[in-house]
Amino acid sequence: MDYNSLIQAIRKKQSFLCVGLDTDIDKIPAHLKTSADPVFAFNKAIIDATAKYTVAYKPNTAFYECLGAEGWKSLQKTAEYIKRNYPGILLIADAKRGDIGNTSAMYAKAFFEHMPFDALTVAPYMGSDSVSPFLGFSGKWTVVLALTSNPGSADFQTLDCGGSKLFEKVLRRAQAWGSKENLMFVIGATRADMLAEVRKAAPGNFLLVPGIGAQGGSLEEVAACGMTKDCGLLVNSSRAIIYAGDGPSFDTAAGQEAKKLQAAMQAILKEMDILQG
Amino acid sequence: MDYNSLIQAIRKKQSFLCVGLDTDIDKIPAHLKTSADPVFAFNKAIIDATAKYTVAYKPNTAFYECLGAEGWKSLQKTAEYIKRNYPGILLIADAKRGDIGNTSAMYAKAFFEHMPFDALTVAPYMGSDSVSPFLGFSGKWTVVLALTSNPGSADFQTLDCGGSKLFEKVLRRAQAWGSKENLMFVIGATRADMLAEVRKAAPGNFLLVPGIGAQGGSLEEVAACGMTKDCGLLVNSSRAIIYAGDGPSFDTAAGQEAKKLQAAMQAILKEMDILQG
Repeated sequence: MDYNSLIQAIRKKQSFLCVGLDTDIDKIPAHLKTSADPVFAFNKAIIDATAKYTVAYKPNTAFYECLGAEGWKSLQKTAEYIKRNYPGILLIADAKRGDIGNTSAMYAKAFFEHMPFDALTVAPYMGSDSVSPFLGFSGKWTVVLALTSNPGSADFQTLDCGGSKLFEKVLRRAQAWGSKENLMFVIGATRADMLAEVRKAAPGNFLLVPGIGAQGGSLEEVAACGMTKDCGLLVNSSRAIIYAGDGPSFDTAAGQEAKKLQAAMQAILKEMDILQG
Repeated sequence: MDYNSLIQAIRKKQSFLCVGLDTDIDKIPAHLKTSADPVFAFNKAIIDATAKYTVAYKPNTAFYECLGAEGWKSLQKTAEYIKRNYPGILLIADAKRGDIGNTSAMYAKAFFEHMPFDALTVAPYMGSDSVSPFLGFSGKWTVVLALTSNPGSADFQTLDCGGSKLFEKVLRRAQAWGSKENLMFVIGATRADMLAEVRKAAPGNFLLVPGIGAQGGSLEEVAACGMTKDCGLLVNSSRAIIYAGDGPSFDTAAGQEAKKLQAAMQAILKEMDILQG
């Protein structure tokens, strides 16, 4: 999915919502527990209920890996279901991978060839040759962690490294490895105060912004500081949407929550005059 | 596997060798390709041929993930085979994971509960709450990336951050989260010149050292600069051992290569007077 298709999807759906499929087997409603693949059954219902409000889905691989090979099957089925039924939606694997070059290439194969993901989150610590293999796949996106939404982000990411913070170094150096057509950054919504700095270092790249909802970030603040003329934001909500309800109508509750966020996003997109293209 | 058991294993086997099971399906000898699980068949033969020379095995998850759920089955079978047949050998998942706290806990479950790994490599970029969940598992090890063996390590890891390099900050801060009983660091053998600095910042922790062999690091240099009175080193070799041969006797060739490295390690351990405990 290329840059222009992503912007068109945002304009058409009047949304820049990404739904995080962080599906915890212990939180799946009771009536699904007896199905052959409860994780996929849950995801399928959530996807069908939220697809018209969202431009991206983002399963976090940890929630699937903790179930072993069965979990990987659920992940693969989920990815294939989205691509088959909602081909215009960006499919992001939140895997935070990164290794030496030839090994990163194996991870790229895992997500971009063996599974039909459009994008993958990648950790920057190992530098250029750990990130570049992902950028070599045509039509795919690499989403580099820059400033994350957790408290530990203050341990290293905001360290002063000769006049600029580590996350700013990451933002600037990574732009030499890719372009705004294939490179996004993860910027936590809980750090909205730093979005102005982020936009100085990375004016044109899409930002994938987790931390709205359960983690406490504000959609309006993120939009005010981080939006570009092409929107340039994918704002993720996981728990607040997928666990909005917990009974037989959990999917309806999830759809309503996604719709609320989409309505708030539509208002922002109108106000910022981004809907015309 | 606790700290003392690891040292005893090193003394008993007169080795600090870790064999990297980076099993590339495309490099498996032809006669194994028709077996039901070629990756496991290859690993089993390599393990049986090298177990008496090694104190640790380290599969890199990328090589398994790129085969999807089938690859995860091969990984699980490999881990279980090692634990069942060679329970005194440390089993490290080279996964370089790391995420916000509740998600890192899921990764910990994946490797420490669903699979029988003793240790896991973890990326430090997201800070304390991304690493701490792994350290909460009794008898398990967390191996934090500090200074890696790839060229890209110069992009961020050696940046000056207020008088010390980023990897030194990682070494020092991480020691507040764990102890030498449950925390190791990855230090690339290609950076042996920096091992003296590493030992100033982390005098007592075990170091997992990749980069010997195919990547060009020297065992003798690493030992001279990095060894402690308890050895304190696990030196990894992957490709140089597992692809030492490529015909029907590939396992014999791997065993011979491991034996050579073990002999070199034995000489170093004797010279450094580490074999008596």
